Amino acid sequence: MPGEDVDDTFKILIATDIHLGYGEKDAIRGNDSLVAFEEILDNGKKHDVDFILLGGDLFHENKPSRKILHGCLALLRKYCMGDKPIQYEFLSDQSVDFSHCQFPILNHEDQNLNVATPVLSIHGNHDDPTGQGNLCALDLLHTAGFVNYFGKTTSLEKIEISPLLLQKGSTKMALYGLGSIRDERLHRMFLHKNVSMLRPKEDKDDWFNMFVIHQNRAKHGATNYIPEQFLDDFLDLVIWGHEHECRIDPEWNGIQNFYVSQPGSSIATSLSEGETAKKHIGLLQVKGKDFKMTKIPLETVRHLYGSI
Amino acid sequence: MPGEDVDDTFKILIATDIHLGYGEKDAIRGNDSLVAFEEILDNGKKHDVDFILLGGDLFHENKPSRKILHGCLALLRKYCMGDKPIQYEFLSDQSVDFSHCQFPILNHEDQNLNVATPVLSIHGNHDDPTGQGNLCALDLLHTAGFVNYFGKTTSLEKIEISPLLLQKGSTKMALYGLGSIRDERLHRMFLHKNVSMLRPKEDKDDWFNMFVIHQNRAKHGATNYIPEQFLDDFLDLVIWGHEHECRIDPEWNGIQNFYVSQPGSSIATSLSEGETAKKHIGLLQVKGKDFKMTKIPLETVRHLYGSI
Repeated sequence: MPGEDVDDTFKILIATDIHLGYGEKDAIRGNDSLVAFEEILDNGKKHDVDFILLGGDLFHENKPSRKILHGCLALLRKYCMGDKPIQYEFLSDQSVDFSHCQFPILNHEDQNLNVATPVLSIHGNHDDPTGQGNLCALDLLHTAGFVNYFGKTTSLEKIEISPLLLQKGSTKMALYGLGSIRDERLHRMFLHKNVSMLRPKEDKDDWFNMFVIHQNRAKHGATNYIPEQFLDDFLDLVIWGHEHECRIDPEWNGIQNFYVSQPGSSIATSLSEGETAKKHIGLLQVKGKDFKMTKIPLETVRHLYGSI
Repeated sequence: MPGEDVDDTFKILIATDIHLGYGEKDAIRGNDSLVAFEEILDNGKKHDVDFILLGGDLFHENKPSRKILHGCLALLRKYCMGDKPIQYEFLSDQSVDFSHCQFPILNHEDQNLNVATPVLSIHGNHDDPTGQGNLCALDLLHTAGFVNYFGKTTSLEKIEISPLLLQKGSTKMALYGLGSIRDERLHRMFLHKNVSMLRPKEDKDDWFNMFVIHQNRAKHGATNYIPEQFLDDFLDLVIWGHEHECRIDPEWNGIQNFYVSQPGSSIATSLSEGETAKKHIGLLQVKGKDFKMTKIPLETVRHLYGSI
């Protein structure tokens, strides 16, 4: 079981849809999103994870306010920098994996930065690349050296997802990421077989294959969601961002033979049924092809109902 | 003379009014401000300076566009991080000097950052603190660990300017900074004796006293400028930001017994007479109480007239 042999077990903190800046002008709730983010980062430290994986929508606004961007930078500098050695190896080619970034390098591989806890993130639909230079807020964090921004695609026709390849002891992980794309377009690209996931050539069957995606999972119409059966069946675990309801306990898809974990947002943004439940993040442990997801309740989250 | 004994001589690159983002939507000139900033940073590297001192208005817009902020972060990471050891000591209390910052520490004193060339900057009238949290764009750069933002005052009634105290070999420097304040208000505060400059108690006469200020120097009306005679006469050199005309050669003020150097902007922002001259930055060398300012022409600057 994962967790028993620490040298071979990845420990990853999983969170998504943090929506920094949500309700920032509210006199009472204005800081809630930053408070939740701090609780998440603090959990990463407390559980001594190898890295933190975020599933998109770290920011609520495409152009976050100065206060929110500053608060985010400050938290990342406080919690993610430090002397803890990185316990895993990065095997794939950074210059390819991060070719969309001005610094195509992982922050913990930069000799000028002392990173204790790397953060890896894809973008969501709220913080997707736009405007001059096709940049998003994660580009600012990546270039500042605080986040590793992956899963950005530039082609509108054809997507090839190349995984980040990581190894800790005997455990090998292929981490696939795809930042948010308009559902209808991605749906169509899947139907036309224009989305492919590359696989490592060596020891093909030894990798734990994880995919982080930020799309509609629930069917809102014929084509504005991504059915699970569109995804490759060699995957072991899909981390599904965008949906705010916490369904973080991995759900088995018997047709595709993979698990799906939907962490849900760390802040309540609507009065819907799904958002009334307790919010959680996950501590994911992976050893070989086995994994265990442990739910961690978020204590600071204030719900939209009630009078906390 | 400064420059002869490198161990006792501060080498400082002086620039001001870089106005990142000026004309950024212009199809031809859009990148000019970033190009000029790169030339400035490159000069800092080439001349192996101890630090770079900026006199305000690094940004043209109070809320710089993502493209400009990203470009600025990228240049600072590229040029200011690295293995070069810092050759001077910082003697004053960082937690006081940078008490207005969330990380009240110089970037090169942070064990998690490997800084080769520190940048010190005050804010100007274009990039002054505003809005929630009273933050400015320099706060983002300071918190990201790329700039040391000083000279911010919070009181509207009374200003006490405490100097950063630096020592290199036998040379001691007291560096005073005052970020831009509305001219009329600052003028009135000076008249009412509400602006004071603190001086180190020990070896009072041994310090080279330098003041960086960002205000109107030219008289535009009775009170909307700061007359040089308002400034303390113990100063040795005043670096005057805000005025865009390059008058970087130090001018002697015989009444106050100090020199004033006005570097001018590194980008032409108006068609005025003063902006048609060649743009320069300065290489300032300070040894004991002596200094030398060497003009460095900026080669990439495109003027508003002509067809370069």
